[in-house]
Amino acid sequence: MRYEEFTIEGRNACMEAFRSGKTIDKLFILDGCKDGPILSIVREAKKKDTFIQYVKKERLDQMSETGKHQGVIAYAAAYDYATVEDILENAKSKNEPPFIFLLDGIEDPHNLGAIIRTANLAGAHGVIIPKHRAVGLTATVARTSAGALNYTPVAKVTNLGKTIDELKEQGIWFACADMGGEVMYRTNLTGPMGLVIGNEGEGVSRLVKEKCDYITSIPMKGDIDSLNASVAAGVLAYEIVRQRWNQNK
Amino acid sequence: MRYEEFTIEGRNACMEAFRSGKTIDKLFILDGCKDGPILSIVREAKKKDTFIQYVKKERLDQMSETGKHQGVIAYAAAYDYATVEDILENAKSKNEPPFIFLLDGIEDPHNLGAIIRTANLAGAHGVIIPKHRAVGLTATVARTSAGALNYTPVAKVTNLGKTIDELKEQGIWFACADMGGEVMYRTNLTGPMGLVIGNEGEGVSRLVKEKCDYITSIPMKGDIDSLNASVAAGVLAYEIVRQRWNQNK
Repeated sequence: MRYEEFTIEGRNACMEAFRSGKTIDKLFILDGCKDGPILSIVREAKKKDTFIQYVKKERLDQMSETGKHQGVIAYAAAYDYATVEDILENAKSKNEPPFIFLLDGIEDPHNLGAIIRTANLAGAHGVIIPKHRAVGLTATVARTSAGALNYTPVAKVTNLGKTIDELKEQGIWFACADMGGEVMYRTNLTGPMGLVIGNEGEGVSRLVKEKCDYITSIPMKGDIDSLNASVAAGVLAYEIVRQRWNQNK
Repeated sequence: MRYEEFTIEGRNACMEAFRSGKTIDKLFILDGCKDGPILSIVREAKKKDTFIQYVKKERLDQMSETGKHQGVIAYAAAYDYATVEDILENAKSKNEPPFIFLLDGIEDPHNLGAIIRTANLAGAHGVIIPKHRAVGLTATVARTSAGALNYTPVAKVTNLGKTIDELKEQGIWFACADMGGEVMYRTNLTGPMGLVIGNEGEGVSRLVKEKCDYITSIPMKGDIDSLNASVAAGVLAYEIVRQRWNQNK
């Protein structure tokens, strides 16, 4: 999938994007290219912990819109990322126990957009996504979020497990959705809560699952295996909404 | 959006498709073309109440894969449709009160696929979609349903309002999701239930809404207007699942 609006091509343009503080989702560099300007760009990218992929000339040519990539193409974020602190601050300013979505590798931009939309309407304070093996805030995500991206902060972290550990120290409990867990109606999902949603195909990764306080299940009556990831996120988020609603009745 | 796998082009192929009983979602005819074979195809299409669209030659040329459309192109269903009776029979055979999804004009095939997937897992007995102004069972829908289309019957009806009236006579109650309704936790959604989901942009149409016994709302805490249609369908369907689960505890 391409997000033409936010493709930056060429050495000066890419260098400028990094210097201006723009968030670059991915950097594609011509494999074997090691001259001064390219090395400067790579240095900037490493400083910002940007994901760098070394590719063949054919790939770059194919990705290029302008035909003048000069060995480097960057994919820029459509929106700026927030920090985990911004999300906690958001909860604090509303005087609510934190309610955070953590997405363990959502790959489909339509799913990510729909989940950010759900997070906004379910009253979550933010969404945390991992830097690698996941889609970032692209133009498609922005569009599918139906405006939610303007309100709901999204933070990108290098290591989801480490972020969970840090948030646990702040008193947040974590629930992930997985088959074989306790049915969600019986899981206590009130209080400060991180809701972990797994990848479309693989579910929640083992390392992240082990860190969760609860493994909870959506009851499945049918013949197939799993709900669409954004639907599952919606169903679980609204079980949290319901339990909080019941508590405040 | 194109569904190449199921595009049928040319006079013989289209006529044959109708004669064999294949479900044709849409028929495109060259505007002004009125010779014998075309009129025969139109006659067959009208018999089956197929949606016919008269288009200019440029449009047909553009849609054509083979370059030999001879003034007629049909879009065929990827799967065969069930009947409303099949859906009721499905509930009866499981000895359960009917639980049916009615989609009032879902246009995005990804949403339709995800909703059929949800219907399957929430234990619904079938999905009813309207013939016009809605996406049918295309290849994309089949793929997005993740196999649910093999298990959950989908019926296509000419007039959703009339179908609701007929199902009401069978003792089924109808709930539609709309802003300003009673919060879903307070709506009694047990018993034989038809869940009506509106169009992505416009929601539930007035005529259909007037026929519903309940107007129910998903609580919205955020800044934007509405959930993605397939997420909303999931959240509501699982409120029905929860209420039935509670009842059977």
